[in-house]
Amino acid sequence: MESQNDSQLSNEEKHFLDLAFNYAQEALDNQEVPVGCIFVYNNQIIASGRNTVNETRNATRHAEINCIDDTFKYSKDNQLNFHEVIRKICVYVTVEPCIMCAAALFEHKVCKVVFGCKNDRFGGSTVFDVGAVMKPVTIVKGGYRGEDAMGLLKEFYKGTNPNAPVSKVKLKDLK
Amino acid sequence: MESQNDSQLSNEEKHFLDLAFNYAQEALDNQEVPVGCIFVYNNQIIASGRNTVNETRNATRHAEINCIDDTFKYSKDNQLNFHEVIRKICVYVTVEPCIMCAAALFEHKVCKVVFGCKNDRFGGSTVFDVGAVMKPVTIVKGGYRGEDAMGLLKEFYKGTNPNAPVSKVKLKDLK
Repeated sequence: MESQNDSQLSNEEKHFLDLAFNYAQEALDNQEVPVGCIFVYNNQIIASGRNTVNETRNATRHAEINCIDDTFKYSKDNQLNFHEVIRKICVYVTVEPCIMCAAALFEHKVCKVVFGCKNDRFGGSTVFDVGAVMKPVTIVKGGYRGEDAMGLLKEFYKGTNPNAPVSKVKLKDLK
Repeated sequence: MESQNDSQLSNEEKHFLDLAFNYAQEALDNQEVPVGCIFVYNNQIIASGRNTVNETRNATRHAEINCIDDTFKYSKDNQLNFHEVIRKICVYVTVEPCIMCAAALFEHKVCKVVFGCKNDRFGGSTVFDVGAVMKPVTIVKGGYRGEDAMGLLKEFYKGTNPNAPVSKVKLKDLK
């Protein structure tokens, strides 16, 4: 994975990532770690969401995992083969997927992942290159509106995350 | 994580891991990658299962993920706080959790993971030490009945996995 600047993303990619930011803001408004995500299939948004870790008290309800589950439901409701649908999914997510989410997305062989800012603590490319192990077919691009995505995270960690351990609210970890 | 020999596991730990092998065998009988798993809470089995990747055509339905979801359901059905239940879970799994599953289990802060054989391709300790990044509270022990667990995997990859890409059926990858 290499970080890309804005000009290396298509207008379509920027458009979808812009939309993902709405869900990151919604997460912040609901005292969740502000990560927003959109899944696009055949140029249509079929899943969208955000972290719901605090709301569900379920530590793995990351935005991407929620969207994977919604894609499973979408496939079932539309009598489509989930296995085939998920391989055509382009993922737009405001923060680089964590190790768990990166491994899940690569396991599902999603088509593309476009993210905003890097995840310097748990990033599935930055901290450890999950792709080097899993050798995914997935294209990964990052760097568009990275400052905005990081700004939302900083805003969140300035406030109160009722379930965050002390070590997680240190701003230095996000720099 | 350090590999442990049989004598370093308690009889109770061996007992639960032995039970997990039944689910690995069931997976093999159903043409799934033979990994079996048991979740123990307050000395009682509250979730048990195996890989259902081929059956569901969902690449992330690993044994551990299925058990996490069953624990969520168990907590709901028993009006318990999932967040508190999962932290007391001891995981017994025949094969070392992959990177995705290790990250998920560490994220949930499960109490302990006891596994059979190492996972030299995707292992969340062996290939990449997820714990070094996530600094989990989880105790991880491996090595009990490793040969048996590996034997089941070899048996599977000798046969027909209808969804396995060619590279995954190479026995050398499992050695």
